[in-house]
Amino acid sequence: MARTTGSDGEKTEAAVREAAVSLIARLGYEAMSMRQLAAEVGVQAAALYRYFPTKEDLLFTLMREHMEGLLNAWEAARPASADPVTRLAAYVENHIAFHIERRHATHVSNMELRSLSHERLTQILKMRTAYEKELRTILRDGAEAGAFEIDDTGLTAMALIQMMTGVIVWFRPGERLSLAEVTASYLSMTMRLVGATISHGTARPSGRAGDAVAL
Amino acid sequence: MARTTGSDGEKTEAAVREAAVSLIARLGYEAMSMRQLAAEVGVQAAALYRYFPTKEDLLFTLMREHMEGLLNAWEAARPASADPVTRLAAYVENHIAFHIERRHATHVSNMELRSLSHERLTQILKMRTAYEKELRTILRDGAEAGAFEIDDTGLTAMALIQMMTGVIVWFRPGERLSLAEVTASYLSMTMRLVGATISHGTARPSGRAGDAVAL
Repeated sequence: MARTTGSDGEKTEAAVREAAVSLIARLGYEAMSMRQLAAEVGVQAAALYRYFPTKEDLLFTLMREHMEGLLNAWEAARPASADPVTRLAAYVENHIAFHIERRHATHVSNMELRSLSHERLTQILKMRTAYEKELRTILRDGAEAGAFEIDDTGLTAMALIQMMTGVIVWFRPGERLSLAEVTASYLSMTMRLVGATISHGTARPSGRAGDAVAL
Repeated sequence: MARTTGSDGEKTEAAVREAAVSLIARLGYEAMSMRQLAAEVGVQAAALYRYFPTKEDLLFTLMREHMEGLLNAWEAARPASADPVTRLAAYVENHIAFHIERRHATHVSNMELRSLSHERLTQILKMRTAYEKELRTILRDGAEAGAFEIDDTGLTAMALIQMMTGVIVWFRPGERLSLAEVTASYLSMTMRLVGATISHGTARPSGRAGDAVAL
């Protein structure tokens, strides 16, 4: 109980979030009980409700933080350059690196939208739309500048995002390919898919993407 | 009770499978109870166990039938032509049409693998591998014939499958684009992604894909 105040409280809250992501990824949100989660963290169920008054508050917090993290990561990775190829490459590298490091949270964010209330679902979808719009803007700028050849900007953005997020389904560190190699390959496929006139080819993935191989 | 024998029995079994796909897609497999499923179908829980002795038997049946259906659909759609561009186009059209018509079953098949026993998981993964191998073979044949430009056949196959299956997440019939338009756009993105020298461009989707618009 002493752990629920001050920085110990923050630690408990972080432990709850981490355990929840892992339990929901394993059992699904509807099947997970707050009692089970409390046992996993080693606190009383009543303690959980101080941080998350309802189970849905917990789910919403996990999803909101996932999307905030993604938007912040992109804010930090976004290049100063106006060149669409450079911007698209940065978007791809950031997207793959962010999701590979958060396999379970990505899984929860994609699968459990059905369990959010309408109002909260709207909030999460608004953040997703903002993130996807960044990609659509890059694609449109590239098409307008004649750097890309794109039929439908919205469809291309969805196709690229699904293709990239799909990496978490099959990629396992330490197998045939390193994350840097996978990222380079996805960069090259992306540039071909958008008909980039300047092929990014075997682009060097960012240091951050390389670091994540150690996961 | 009379409904559990002969062709009525088959009807009940089909009703159970259909209700199960929809309940699992909504609640998740772990959260769904056999009692709940029986109530949904309008039979006694004991009747369910005649068709599916355990809840996992039911899940396995749903997943196996989904994969068998996909393999059979591809067997029927596979063109006689040896041309890699024609074969790849047929694979894309069949994949998108099949999954759009089975949104919930696809969802269940992708999300609930975690709940299968090791032996049954192996069986399902073997079927998936067989299906993916069909695509890898087309890609490799195309690369060898100089029709495609591909860095990594395995990675390209995964990227394409994730990109195509992703359509079920956002596509809704009756919105901005028809299924035929979406399929044409995905065909064109696919051909660019694999660096096809003969661009399939705005390929005419098959009649089947067109029909599915009425879903």
